[in-house]
Amino acid sequence: MKKILVSNDDGVFAPGIAALAKAMETIGEVTVIAPDRNRSGASNALTLDRPIEAHTHKNGFIGLNGTPTDCVHMGVSGLFCERPDIVVSGINNGANLGDDVLYSGTVAAAMEGRSLNLSAIAVSLASFTPKYFDTAAEVVKTIVENLDTLNLPPRTVLNVNVPDVPLAEIKGIHLTRLGHRAAAGVPVATTDPRGKIRYWVAGAGDAVDKEAGTDFYAVDQGYVSITPLHIDMTSYAVMEQMGDWLESLG
Amino acid sequence: MKKILVSNDDGVFAPGIAALAKAMETIGEVTVIAPDRNRSGASNALTLDRPIEAHTHKNGFIGLNGTPTDCVHMGVSGLFCERPDIVVSGINNGANLGDDVLYSGTVAAAMEGRSLNLSAIAVSLASFTPKYFDTAAEVVKTIVENLDTLNLPPRTVLNVNVPDVPLAEIKGIHLTRLGHRAAAGVPVATTDPRGKIRYWVAGAGDAVDKEAGTDFYAVDQGYVSITPLHIDMTSYAVMEQMGDWLESLG
Amino acid sequence: MKKILVSNDDGVFAPGIAALAKAMETIGEVTVIAPDRNRSGASNALTLDRPIEAHTHKNGFIGLNGTPTDCVHMGVSGLFCERPDIVVSGINNGANLGDDVLYSGTVAAAMEGRSLNLSAIAVSLASFTPKYFDTAAEVVKTIVENLDTLNLPPRTVLNVNVPDVPLAEIKGIHLTRLGHRAAAGVPVATTDPRGKIRYWVAGAGDAVDKEAGTDFYAVDQGYVSITPLHIDMTSYAVMEQMGDWLESLG
Amino acid sequence: MKKILVSNDDGVFAPGIAALAKAMETIGEVTVIAPDRNRSGASNALTLDRPIEAHTHKNGFIGLNGTPTDCVHMGVSGLFCERPDIVVSGINNGANLGDDVLYSGTVAAAMEGRSLNLSAIAVSLASFTPKYFDTAAEVVKTIVENLDTLNLPPRTVLNVNVPDVPLAEIKGIHLTRLGHRAAAGVPVATTDPRGKIRYWVAGAGDAVDKEAGTDFYAVDQGYVSITPLHIDMTSYAVMEQMGDWLESLG
Repeated sequence: MKKILVSNDDGVFAPGIAALAKAMETIGEVTVIAPDRNRSGASNALTLDRPIEAHTHKNGFIGLNGTPTDCVHMGVSGLFCERPDIVVSGINNGANLGDDVLYSGTVAAAMEGRSLNLSAIAVSLASFTPKYFDTAAEVVKTIVENLDTLNLPPRTVLNVNVPDVPLAEIKGIHLTRLGHRAAAGVPVATTDPRGKIRYWVAGAGDAVDKEAGTDFYAVDQGYVSITPLHIDMTSYAVMEQMGDWLESLG
Repeated sequence: MKKILVSNDDGVFAPGIAALAKAMETIGEVTVIAPDRNRSGASNALTLDRPIEAHTHKNGFIGLNGTPTDCVHMGVSGLFCERPDIVVSGINNGANLGDDVLYSGTVAAAMEGRSLNLSAIAVSLASFTPKYFDTAAEVVKTIVENLDTLNLPPRTVLNVNVPDVPLAEIKGIHLTRLGHRAAAGVPVATTDPRGKIRYWVAGAGDAVDKEAGTDFYAVDQGYVSITPLHIDMTSYAVMEQMGDWLESLG
Repeated sequence: MKKILVSNDDGVFAPGIAALAKAMETIGEVTVIAPDRNRSGASNALTLDRPIEAHTHKNGFIGLNGTPTDCVHMGVSGLFCERPDIVVSGINNGANLGDDVLYSGTVAAAMEGRSLNLSAIAVSLASFTPKYFDTAAEVVKTIVENLDTLNLPPRTVLNVNVPDVPLAEIKGIHLTRLGHRAAAGVPVATTDPRGKIRYWVAGAGDAVDKEAGTDFYAVDQGYVSITPLHIDMTSYAVMEQMGDWLESLG
Repeated sequence: MKKILVSNDDGVFAPGIAALAKAMETIGEVTVIAPDRNRSGASNALTLDRPIEAHTHKNGFIGLNGTPTDCVHMGVSGLFCERPDIVVSGINNGANLGDDVLYSGTVAAAMEGRSLNLSAIAVSLASFTPKYFDTAAEVVKTIVENLDTLNLPPRTVLNVNVPDVPLAEIKGIHLTRLGHRAAAGVPVATTDPRGKIRYWVAGAGDAVDKEAGTDFYAVDQGYVSITPLHIDMTSYAVMEQMGDWLESLG
C-alpha cells in the first residue's frame, strides 16, 4: 500500500485537506502534516530562524507552526511517520495557474517531495469560492492510482487544477504548459486606526498568455489541467545564446 | 542611465547589499529596498496576511517588514521610486547553487523583477564566512554594464555565484547549468528551557550532481558561475511522454 | 443568564479551554475566542502592525491570529458576539503565581475584560503536566456562580490558581497576595544547524517571597489561591516619599 | 560611573532611543539593546517559542528580534554587557498615560529591570508627532543623576511623560497617579486586495479619569508627569472585602 504524505498551504483546518486526506485513505496509508494556519503565498520558504513545533490534533492531522515546505521537509524525514512514497498537496482553495506556481505553497509542498519514489502532486480547485472539493479529490485519486504505470523521471511534479464543478460536468483532462500572467497591480495603501500607512501586496495580474495549450485555457474550458513541472530551472536555450557574449566580456 | 533596484534576502543591514549598492551607483541610478531583517530561505514567498510597512534609513536604504519578493513587488510598482529597468539582488551571504535556488530569497527577489526591460540578476558569494564582497560587486558590475548587448529573452534571470577570493584570483566566468543536491538531512531536535521539543530545518544536502558543466563545479574550480534561469517550469519533455498515459486513464 | 466570554493564552485547541467552556456552558451563554496557537508569555500585548483574522472552528470556538489581549479586545467589542458580562480566561497549562502575572497571557486576557459588569477571572492549573482540568473548572464555576453577591470594585481581576489534584483533595480556598520570584536565570544559548548562535529566554526564577499569605504558599499547601488584582499600578506609598525629593530637584 | 542599559519599544532605529542614549552617555556607561523593529504595544510579552538573535549595528546598538522585555531580559543577564545598575527605556514616540502602561512596551522594558540596584525609568514624549526628544532626554538625565538620593523601595518603576515642547517651556514636574481610559473603540474592519476581511485593534479610549492629580492632567497642563509604579498588583483593599464572601462559599 502506498504511503502518502498529505500537506497543503491553506492550513491543517482547511476543508480541502480534509477532502484530500479522505480520498487518499481509500488507496493508501496517509499521514497529514500541514501548517497550523493559512500560509498561502509561502512558496518554497523554509523557516531557518526558529525551530518548528508540532501539534497532533484530534483527527490525527499534525499541525506545524511552519511553512508548507517545512511540513514536507519534516514529513519526508521519517521524523513523524515512515518515509512516504509520494507527497500529495492540496486541495488548494483557488487555482494555481501560470506564474502562480512561483508563489504557491501548495506547489512548493509537492516540490519538497521531489526526492521520493513517486512524482509529487499539487492539486487546486479553480475558484475563488470553491465548493466541489470532492471533484478534485476524485481526480487526484485516479491520478495517484495510475501513477505507477507512468514512468516519470525523478524530480517531477504534476500540477493539477480542477474546475469547481460536479464531477459529472468535468469535460476531460488536458495536458498543458504553464501560461503566464501580467505583472501584479500596484500595492494597495491602507491606513491603520493610528494613522500609519501600510501597503498590501496587490492581487495577481491577469493571464496574458492563456491561449490553447495553456493551463489557463484548459480550466477555462472546463477541463482538468495537468502540467508536469521540472525542478531544474536552467534555461538551456539561453545558455547556447550566451556563449559568445561571455567571451566578449573577456 | 539605468534605473537599478537593489534588493537581497539577508536584510537591509547586511554588508553584501551595501557593497552591491555602492558598485551599482557607479553605473546607474540606484534604489535599495530590502527586508528589515534576515529573510534567508524566504523563496518567492509573498506576504498576504498583513500590509507591509516601510522605513527609510539614514543611508537612504528602504527597509520593509516583508519578504524579498514583497520588496521587489513594491519596488517595481513605482510606489517608492520610478519603475526600474533591472533588479539586482544580493550580494548573498553564501552560495546559491543547484536546488538552493528553490529556497533562495536572493534568487526570488531577482525573479520578481522578471517583467522589467533587462534580465534580473542574483549574485551570491560562495562561502559560509564571506569576505570578498568587492569581488562579487565588481563581477556583477561588469555583467550589468554589458547586459544591453546580450539580447536575452523576457523573463530570464541570471544566477551568479562568485568564489570568495580577491578579484585577481578569479579564474574566469563559466556558463553553467544547475547541479542538484541530495535530500536535506534529518531535522535537528532541540529542547527549550521549559522542556518543550522543537525541530530545526536541517542543513542543505550535499551536492550529488556536481560534474563539469554544473554551477557547483565552476565555483569549486575557482570560476564565477552564471546560470541563466527561466521562469517557466513546464517540463516539455515529460509532456510528450504523458500523452498516451492520459488517454489510458479514459 | 450570564454572557460569558472565554479565552486563554494556550490557544483555541488547548484542553484547558475546552474544560473551561464546558463548565461555563452549564451556567451561562458562552462565546470562546482564543489565539489560533499557543501564545503563552504574551502578557497584555496588542497587535498593532497588522489586522487580525478570525476563523470559526467546527466546535464553534473562534480562533484569532492574535494575542490573548487581541482576542478579548475583539470579544468585548460586540463584533463576534453580544457584549459579555464577564471574561473568564484559562484554564492555563501551569501556574500563574507572583511575578508570573506580569507575563501571563491568561491574566492579560482577563484584564482586558476590566470594563465589563463583573470582575474578570483568570484560572490556572498549578502543574507543569496538568491533569485535573475538571477540578479547576469546578472551582471557577463556583466562583462565577457566586460573583453577583460579591460587590467587587470596577477594574478588579481575580487570579485563581488551582492545585492539580482531584476535586476531593482540594483543602479549601485561600485569599492571597502575590508573592514574588527571583530574577530569571541566564538565557540559554543554542546553535542552529547552520552554526548560528541564538538565545532562549530563561525559565522563571524560583519563588523568593513565598511565605504564608502568598499565592505560592497556598498552592503549595494544597489550597486554591485567589488573589484580587487591581489594574492601577500607581504606588501611592512611593508617591508620598517622593514629594520632598522632587522639590529638591528644583 | 553608573552602568545604564537603554532600551525601548519603538525599535533600535527610532530617534527617541538615539536621543536617550546620547544623554545617558554623559552620565554613565551605556549599553543599548532594543528590538530590531517597532514593537509598540508589546507589553511584558516574552518570546518563548523561539530563541532570540542579536545583531550589533554600526553605532554599537544591539538589535534583537524580540520584544522589549526580551531585550532587557537578555541585557540584565550579563550576556551582552556587564550587569547594569539601572534600565532606562524610551524615549517613546507618544505618551504612556493611564491604562497605556498595561500595553506599553516602553514601560515593560523598564519593569524588566526591576531587580537591579536602581529604580527603572520609562520615559515617553507626549505627542503623536513628537519633536522635542531633547527635552525628554534632559528631563530623564536630571532624574537619573539624582536617583541615588531618593531611596526608592525595590521593584519600583518611574513612569515619566514629557510634554513635547522646548525645555524652557516645561512648567515643572508633577508627581501623579495613573488616570484611566474608557474602553477602546470598536475594532476597524479592513478588506484586503483578495477580498478577505480582517480587523484592526482600535485606538485607545479617551481619558475618563483625568482630573487634577492624574498623569493625564499634568501633561495636559504642560508639566512633566512622574508616576511611581509598583510591580505588585495585589489589591489589598479588595482582599479585606472578600474574606466573608469566601467563607460563605463554604
